[in-house]
Amino acid sequence: MIAVDWGTTSFRAFRLRGANVVDRYAGPHGILSIPPGGFASTLRAAIAPWLADGETRVLMSGMVGSRQGWQEAPYLPCPAGASELAAGLVPVPFEGARVLMVPGLSIEGEVPEVMRGEEVQAVGALALIGRDAVACLPGSHSKWARIVGDRIEGFTTHLTGEAFAALRDHTILGRLIQPGTAPDPDAFARGVARSADPGGLLHHLFGVRTLGLFGRLTDAESYLSGLLIGHEVRAAAPPGPVHLIGAPALCALYARATAQCGGSTVLVGEDAAAQGLAIIAEHAQWT
Amino acid sequence: MIAVDWGTTSFRAFRLRGANVVDRYAGPHGILSIPPGGFASTLRAAIAPWLADGETRVLMSGMVGSRQGWQEAPYLPCPAGASELAAGLVPVPFEGARVLMVPGLSIEGEVPEVMRGEEVQAVGALALIGRDAVACLPGSHSKWARIVGDRIEGFTTHLTGEAFAALRDHTILGRLIQPGTAPDPDAFARGVARSADPGGLLHHLFGVRTLGLFGRLTDAESYLSGLLIGHEVRAAAPPGPVHLIGAPALCALYARATAQCGGSTVLVGEDAAAQGLAIIAEHAQWT
Repeated sequence: MIAVDWGTTSFRAFRLRGANVVDRYAGPHGILSIPPGGFASTLRAAIAPWLADGETRVLMSGMVGSRQGWQEAPYLPCPAGASELAAGLVPVPFEGARVLMVPGLSIEGEVPEVMRGEEVQAVGALALIGRDAVACLPGSHSKWARIVGDRIEGFTTHLTGEAFAALRDHTILGRLIQPGTAPDPDAFARGVARSADPGGLLHHLFGVRTLGLFGRLTDAESYLSGLLIGHEVRAAAPPGPVHLIGAPALCALYARATAQCGGSTVLVGEDAAAQGLAIIAEHAQWT
Repeated sequence: MIAVDWGTTSFRAFRLRGANVVDRYAGPHGILSIPPGGFASTLRAAIAPWLADGETRVLMSGMVGSRQGWQEAPYLPCPAGASELAAGLVPVPFEGARVLMVPGLSIEGEVPEVMRGEEVQAVGALALIGRDAVACLPGSHSKWARIVGDRIEGFTTHLTGEAFAALRDHTILGRLIQPGTAPDPDAFARGVARSADPGGLLHHLFGVRTLGLFGRLTDAESYLSGLLIGHEVRAAAPPGPVHLIGAPALCALYARATAQCGGSTVLVGEDAAAQGLAIIAEHAQWT
């Protein structure tokens, strides 16, 4: 079968034999770059060799199932695991293969929560971890998911990555940043340490400016990154170990910040999405 | 004499008789809009009628005294009041009048603090309040100043206004905002209330997105404003009353947020800058 993790700015496809990845493809075809009506042809171009070689089943997850994507797959309520997600799959018309879309998850409440794509990675991580755990999926919208038994029990989201980019690129703090500066682990650690001080994030942000003004900051971008990740980790991390899922460089930053805040982490790796799609595919009704 | 409050994006001039404002001028000649070498001609054009009428003394404050302004006036250390500021005035060459620049204030420490322009407003407020107090000057970089005796004892800064604009204009939250929507006091109050919840600001920011996605937000911009001001007030407001200095509409938002957080406020008004410059002018050596 073919597993596709199709997000806002990225497209990753995996050819699977059971849970093993036997071939893979990645491209910059995030849903924001797809013209109206262009989803089917983008998918076909990406997986054409595998279709020609006899594959007939495609399982997709991510923002491709959102209102801005190819076809909306309504959110399922939490808690939910592989079997609930498999029961909620939405068929997508596509000539020459059976294409199914994984729904996202939501939590009702005074302030709702949503995820789309991360639920599949959490299901994959769940199989790899093998016990109750907290998983962190860092990114533009970082997710912290509680895994209990074989289901995602609940989760929270932090706008950390997007806030970082907006503050760096569109406030006075950006004037301190030299493009192309190599990341500085010491400046990152100082930002993480600062996040423990009283005064709140909005106060700490102005400190990035004054440290720069007084020539006391080697790398404002690393400091700002440490400050924001530090605030996120202190607010979200539980007492036990945190299982990190995502791109290695970003997971490494979260591992360092979590350790500095007194916690511990386990790296789960990047292929959790393919694992999760393989598990959901086993539960799916393909015909 | 003539008092000039010259900031990053605004220019305000006052003609004073003692501490009384007898004429005023305001224009969009913030220092960011002044071409190289254009400060003197901008000032001259703005105050020409008063110079022609015999004024010979000009006292300036604000970002015009920064490295990006007309002439840098080095920061003075805190605590400082009218007499310390008057002793640190920096002369600026100008034909036909004696022009002096008020220095900013700074606090050394692990993370430094700076202000430039607000120290004059705080000195003006100090005279109006007449006792030890906490003054809040809301804005792009909100200041909270502790006034003890006749000096500014210390202060903190929050990047609230700039963070608000960056998050509104350059993250996914902006997609929820209909330009031209009238501010909604109820949505603002919900944002202030949310700032008391656990989870931290970065988590609360994602809630703006989900409330909008679920159709539960009448005005995302007011909610975001309440959320950020609520975080600032909860981190910065002391137990006693807060004296608000600044534009009436923004001060009204801070008054509502402070009341909702269990505090109280006193409105000091907008002309604190002119009052402060008049007081510093009395202490100054003009010849």
